[in-house]
Amino acid sequence: MQMTEARRGSATEEMKVVARDEGRPIEQVMRSLAAGRLIIPRNVRRENIDVKGIGEGLRTKVNANVGTSPDYANIDEEVEKAKIAVKRGADTVMDLSIGGDIDEIRMKIIQAVRVPLGTVPIYQAGIKAAKRGSVVDMSSDDIFNAIRRHAEDGVDFVTVHCGVTKAAIETLRQRGRLMDVVSRGGSFLAAWIIHHGEENPLYKEFDYLLELAREYDLTLSLGDGMRPGCLADASDPAQFQELLTLGELVERAWAKDVQVMVEGPGHLPLDHVEANVKLEKSICKGAPFYVLGPIVTDLAPGYDHLVGAIGGALAAWAGADFLCYVTPSEHLCLPSIEDVKEGVTAAKIAAHVADVARGIDLERDAEMARARRKFDWGKQFELAIDSEKPKELRGKRPPMADPETCSMCSEMCAIKMVDSYLKTHGKKSSQLQPKEE
Amino acid sequence: MQMTEARRGSATEEMKVVARDEGRPIEQVMRSLAAGRLIIPRNVRRENIDVKGIGEGLRTKVNANVGTSPDYANIDEEVEKAKIAVKRGADTVMDLSIGGDIDEIRMKIIQAVRVPLGTVPIYQAGIKAAKRGSVVDMSSDDIFNAIRRHAEDGVDFVTVHCGVTKAAIETLRQRGRLMDVVSRGGSFLAAWIIHHGEENPLYKEFDYLLELAREYDLTLSLGDGMRPGCLADASDPAQFQELLTLGELVERAWAKDVQVMVEGPGHLPLDHVEANVKLEKSICKGAPFYVLGPIVTDLAPGYDHLVGAIGGALAAWAGADFLCYVTPSEHLCLPSIEDVKEGVTAAKIAAHVADVARGIDLERDAEMARARRKFDWGKQFELAIDSEKPKELRGKRPPMADPETCSMCSEMCAIKMVDSYLKTHGKKSSQLQPKEE
Repeated sequence: MQMTEARRGSATEEMKVVARDEGRPIEQVMRSLAAGRLIIPRNVRRENIDVKGIGEGLRTKVNANVGTSPDYANIDEEVEKAKIAVKRGADTVMDLSIGGDIDEIRMKIIQAVRVPLGTVPIYQAGIKAAKRGSVVDMSSDDIFNAIRRHAEDGVDFVTVHCGVTKAAIETLRQRGRLMDVVSRGGSFLAAWIIHHGEENPLYKEFDYLLELAREYDLTLSLGDGMRPGCLADASDPAQFQELLTLGELVERAWAKDVQVMVEGPGHLPLDHVEANVKLEKSICKGAPFYVLGPIVTDLAPGYDHLVGAIGGALAAWAGADFLCYVTPSEHLCLPSIEDVKEGVTAAKIAAHVADVARGIDLERDAEMARARRKFDWGKQFELAIDSEKPKELRGKRPPMADPETCSMCSEMCAIKMVDSYLKTHGKKSSQLQPKEE
Repeated sequence: MQMTEARRGSATEEMKVVARDEGRPIEQVMRSLAAGRLIIPRNVRRENIDVKGIGEGLRTKVNANVGTSPDYANIDEEVEKAKIAVKRGADTVMDLSIGGDIDEIRMKIIQAVRVPLGTVPIYQAGIKAAKRGSVVDMSSDDIFNAIRRHAEDGVDFVTVHCGVTKAAIETLRQRGRLMDVVSRGGSFLAAWIIHHGEENPLYKEFDYLLELAREYDLTLSLGDGMRPGCLADASDPAQFQELLTLGELVERAWAKDVQVMVEGPGHLPLDHVEANVKLEKSICKGAPFYVLGPIVTDLAPGYDHLVGAIGGALAAWAGADFLCYVTPSEHLCLPSIEDVKEGVTAAKIAAHVADVARGIDLERDAEMARARRKFDWGKQFELAIDSEKPKELRGKRPPMADPETCSMCSEMCAIKMVDSYLKTHGKKSSQLQPKEE
């Protein structure tokens, strides 16, 4: 197990890869991993993986969700989405399928991509129960069997909504909320708790979950089933009741050398973003924070990838480690392949903007500026976070008068103009002299 | 003149409209306007205008640039862009034409839209001179004649790069910079200063500029010709040398009751954004701040509308009053009509995100949440910042099993599931009870 090895002071192959990829000393990676502030999700059964580190001192990572729905269950398309997401730069992929043959699609995706794969096993347990009657008919065994099944298949990290407890639901009831529960997995467990009046098995039997995680070095992603679903519910008692629970569970996981991260909002106004990150880091003792967006306005369906990029950039700058992409189809429908492209690129931009602000990834921007200065368009496309769209745009309206410039300014290019006068008149002259006749 | 009236304690029709539109007391609008911290750009010659206030206590405003280039000079398309920008919610439009018949397009745009119109008259002076030989052949008279011509036509605000002084150019030479000057108007004046070794007429004859502005109540937008063109140049001596000059000019304008705003960057890393806003507000005594982006990474050509939305949201939250949109074609080519749509919507989202964070525009987000809760899709589209794209996306993958839901979760909709169990089991029960048999 990565955490056991790190605590022993022994560097695994995975730690070495992360240290090399990130340009960090191996000792630093080991120290952060031993303390729980850095994770390397890799199931011991997973083969053909390019491991990624997530957490302290590392570049901000991006996850792309794919998966079928009951309405659209095209396995090939979801596999294609996973491949395209990785091609566009997604560091991990989560398969959130809830339609069609869920086992088959998971296996196809795990074979199709080399990045760490995450899933939400309770979806499968709930869907299976729903087919027999209702989601709430799932038993504790059904839930744990689904998790084990995913772990056996080599899934590297799983979302487990352990914090949706009776106490959290009671807070929700007592204090009220506009959107109640918007997390799919969270809603399965909330319904189950309300129906049975019993405690969430993932909380009650958390020790068993840890044993299972230990068997596979399965990373637990502690889901935020009570995440706010609109700005009006942001940072409310139900959300923080759950966070307090997750903070306890993080420490219990670490005591068993189980790698863990914590999932966060969700819908938050911009002025709540930093506070939410700082609180997670404080309550959960620096465990990596994995945020969904955050979505900083409810008013922009069709543009939630952009809204999520605003929230994500600020969150990652404040210390969030891992951004879950949001696509333009969020709140509207199952995303298309085009949506996946837009979503990944938007999240990659947010992650990079934050990494620049954190001072850990500055050089590429300067390289781009130098390429612009030299009108080296090939280099500009090469350095771009996505090169497909800028090439396409420029191709539609190419420059006419001067191929080095762009069709916005053409021969009136500011860079060229100032450059030529500075050159003619001696760039380094210490005084501006009238033109010599 | 608006400022004269405000200082006299007399409310103009324009101030009343702004107070009403923004839901602010008229006294507050007058007080801010009298102090220079709020402007209402309206040329006394301009007819058929829906005035807008920009500045202290008001909602963040958005400008859309349109205009021909030497390579693409299709007047009808630029007029169409202006109309579409306003339809999408742009509060003002700037005509930045530098190709074709510049007088004709300006007149056509001013007749086509009812929002305040801005221009950059030095473009026309420079282009005219370039046709005779070179941009640097323009005389001081050419520059002021162009400004007068635009003012006579009813233009409401003009960008004047008064801060591109000999001192600023000297700083640029001495201290160096990766991209030198990227502002088009700034480059005309920089070339002129370097060539002639003389002072910028817009600085040297600033008093004459103020007289001209007084004649029409023309608002001056003090351009930042030295704005950084890449992250590596952000917040450098050349930029702040210019800002110090602009700070002086703001006070000279106010002494003559001339309305003024200050233009700002440009390319800035995320961690410089707030500092830049606070510095402008401090150096320029609270004059409205009009930012371009800011562009918080150089690495995303094709997505600069999104990059600008990240920077713009943070800037407006920190106190910037007016966001100039950026389109996906920035750094690549003259934007298309589609680019204009994307650009305006991205900037509108950024402005709203900031207004929510500032606590001045919260209610619409809650309304959207209530519409989501009730599965009222018509209302959701109505409230959306843009309704065209979400309708189109949802139309492509409509829900199959339950028309109220979306095709992402279908019958597994979290909101429906929790709602149904909370209802069945008594939403307000104070204790979770086991299911009654």
